[in-house]
Amino acid sequence: MNTAGVALKVELVTIGDELLLGFTLDSNGAHLARELAAIGVTIARRTSVGDDASAISEAVRDALDRTGAVITTGGLGPTSDDLTKPSIAGLFGREMRMDHAILEALRQRWLARGWGKELPKANEQQALIPEGATVLTNRHGSAPGILLEDDRGRWVAMLPGVPREMKGMFAEELLPWIQARAARGVQGDAADAAVVVSRTIRTTAIAESVLAEQVAPALGDLEGLSLAYLPHWPGVDLRLTSAGRPGGESLARLDRAEAALRRAIGAGVYGRDNDDLAAVVLELLKVRGYTMAVAESCTGGLLGGRITAISGSSHFFVGGVIAYSNEVKATHLGVGDDTLIQYGAVSEQTAREMAMGVRARYRADVAASITGIAGPGGGSAEKPVGTVCAAVDVRGEVTTARRNMVGDREEVRQRSAQWALDLVRRRLG
Amino acid sequence: MNTAGVALKVELVTIGDELLLGFTLDSNGAHLARELAAIGVTIARRTSVGDDASAISEAVRDALDRTGAVITTGGLGPTSDDLTKPSIAGLFGREMRMDHAILEALRQRWLARGWGKELPKANEQQALIPEGATVLTNRHGSAPGILLEDDRGRWVAMLPGVPREMKGMFAEELLPWIQARAARGVQGDAADAAVVVSRTIRTTAIAESVLAEQVAPALGDLEGLSLAYLPHWPGVDLRLTSAGRPGGESLARLDRAEAALRRAIGAGVYGRDNDDLAAVVLELLKVRGYTMAVAESCTGGLLGGRITAISGSSHFFVGGVIAYSNEVKATHLGVGDDTLIQYGAVSEQTAREMAMGVRARYRADVAASITGIAGPGGGSAEKPVGTVCAAVDVRGEVTTARRNMVGDREEVRQRSAQWALDLVRRRLG
Repeated sequence: MNTAGVALKVELVTIGDELLLGFTLDSNGAHLARELAAIGVTIARRTSVGDDASAISEAVRDALDRTGAVITTGGLGPTSDDLTKPSIAGLFGREMRMDHAILEALRQRWLARGWGKELPKANEQQALIPEGATVLTNRHGSAPGILLEDDRGRWVAMLPGVPREMKGMFAEELLPWIQARAARGVQGDAADAAVVVSRTIRTTAIAESVLAEQVAPALGDLEGLSLAYLPHWPGVDLRLTSAGRPGGESLARLDRAEAALRRAIGAGVYGRDNDDLAAVVLELLKVRGYTMAVAESCTGGLLGGRITAISGSSHFFVGGVIAYSNEVKATHLGVGDDTLIQYGAVSEQTAREMAMGVRARYRADVAASITGIAGPGGGSAEKPVGTVCAAVDVRGEVTTARRNMVGDREEVRQRSAQWALDLVRRRLG
Repeated sequence: MNTAGVALKVELVTIGDELLLGFTLDSNGAHLARELAAIGVTIARRTSVGDDASAISEAVRDALDRTGAVITTGGLGPTSDDLTKPSIAGLFGREMRMDHAILEALRQRWLARGWGKELPKANEQQALIPEGATVLTNRHGSAPGILLEDDRGRWVAMLPGVPREMKGMFAEELLPWIQARAARGVQGDAADAAVVVSRTIRTTAIAESVLAEQVAPALGDLEGLSLAYLPHWPGVDLRLTSAGRPGGESLARLDRAEAALRRAIGAGVYGRDNDDLAAVVLELLKVRGYTMAVAESCTGGLLGGRITAISGSSHFFVGGVIAYSNEVKATHLGVGDDTLIQYGAVSEQTAREMAMGVRARYRADVAASITGIAGPGGGSAEKPVGTVCAAVDVRGEVTTARRNMVGDREEVRQRSAQWALDLVRRRLG
């Protein structure tokens, strides 16, 4: 989203042994960072600590000293590991008090779920709230969030560690508070004071250096904005940021810049901000009323996995064939034995017959196929590891392509699924 | 691995705008944390900062002040964003010097790859090394790693940000150095001095509370060890740690404790340390000389994706059907229309026919199927969101099961694929 943003610097502190020790990836921290960056908040530093009262307290104290604004996730549950509230209450010199309204709500929830007659003692501590705190309502679970502010205006917001609960509470409770607070602090009574806004333009299957050449003619239209290249496996994102201008002016600049970049890059742009390429493809299928099927060799199901990750995909995606062995390619997709012998399983010819085969047999309007060498073994001089072929069949019109992907086995596979989605997008776009 | 470990406290500082802003998950930090924890190194704190010289320098200085031992990833490349080396050299009061041997190696690599006649100026800065530094060889890419140590024995190791390069350099260069250094520091000349060792026992599809009941009778055999429960979506891991005992004694304790836990939990244990359940299943297929196929509805390809993520899976995995629509279930798997009407697409009966259908049609020895309601829509009172049915057909003998998964759409899907793999493991184990 290209929401008008806020001039604010925040640090994130994510809490939990599993996180610190790498058993869990910090998707909570990444989600908050993206959401905050999208409204122009500066993320100064991210820290992860374990379930340890003094580690939590020190990390939050250090972060507060640097920025005066901290968001934590984790450690709000009922078990003895959950130390976030008392550790941070201690920093603010606040006592813990039982909140009887929250306790009653926890009891009702417990009864309603049929988990038992009586709320266990351990769960009661979820109703302990530091004095003077604002409670952030949890509509997706039991642990309430906490917002503590001191008399110098420094604040810590504590969110739960369960991603679903954290995301809901952030969007419904904390984000509006941050926006209102920043508006008050920065704007005084002017409705259109200085803000930071940003927008991300997403591209895939274009090398960063090629993209830079394409963007060059548009640089004149980016005056007053900063442009960052953010390469990752789904492609290269371009982030535009406007700082310190009145909101309306900044948004107009972003609109002009986005239009200029889209003109310069052309069909390479697949979306903006958090758009997922699979969702973009599903939207194109919807517009045309088309259905889609897939035939996957080296990706082994990842392309289907990407599409079905999108809620509602069942209206347009019928399914497909994971054709890992040559026998499956021949028997269940109708790839010719001649084709497999003459060109090999990894060839544009085989990809073509895979796409045609699955489209006909699964009675879809559109089909995409992938066959490649994900490695680490199986490469040759002519077809090194990373060689991937793909085809797209739209109602009988088939296009094919070949590419060399860099990265390890998993990167090659993920990039291949993304590339195949992009080929479909370009055909339907 | 249950390597003998080292009494050492380390902080990790991962560097990069994409990381800080959540465009990339910190898989580097997670990998290092897991690897270090496995040899008994304590991870005190993890920090992420952006591509900003003063942010890097401050974060590393703070971490050094706390632990005296820091590993960084990222910011060693040839672009102007890559600021790690000069920032940290500055902290140590060291000048940057051109290392002509490294420069020559970079030139040779450039020529050998056919990227052009002359190494670009920007790439030369990869050969700039802080004075007095130890160079960590990069066998997987161009950026050398750096190890800096001051006269008080405090050290910073700088690894590249590309995961493939980082993992290789850590395993080949840094890990042996850390082990040798800790052995020197802690052991004096005794070969079997006090060390920290740990081992992880992996379980899946057992609730934490049920696991705790199963483990209770074995607690007597865990004397002198600490036991941690680490729940995440692939299941609950049990981590055993032994601290401060001579290495041989600690390892013997771990062996006894692992045996006791395996007896207590029984078939619930699928592996240890970094074992992946898909790799365990492939190993069981290999032992029996069996092939396998899959039929997936709600997971849409994720189960195939898990299996084919394992290198060498093509010897045992033939492929399968992504049967998202009922028509595909009927036409390509032979699920009876009666079955779909009478029991519904999400039922053990449908799962049974999906597994039988794909096994017969794809001529495999083993087949697994999944059909469920991933949400957020599609649930009912009788079959709420998270209801998943699965079946396993081993040479004509079919078993089915039903379960309620918690979590959002993606969690339900990932847990379902893991559960189906576990059902196969239990049938073949």
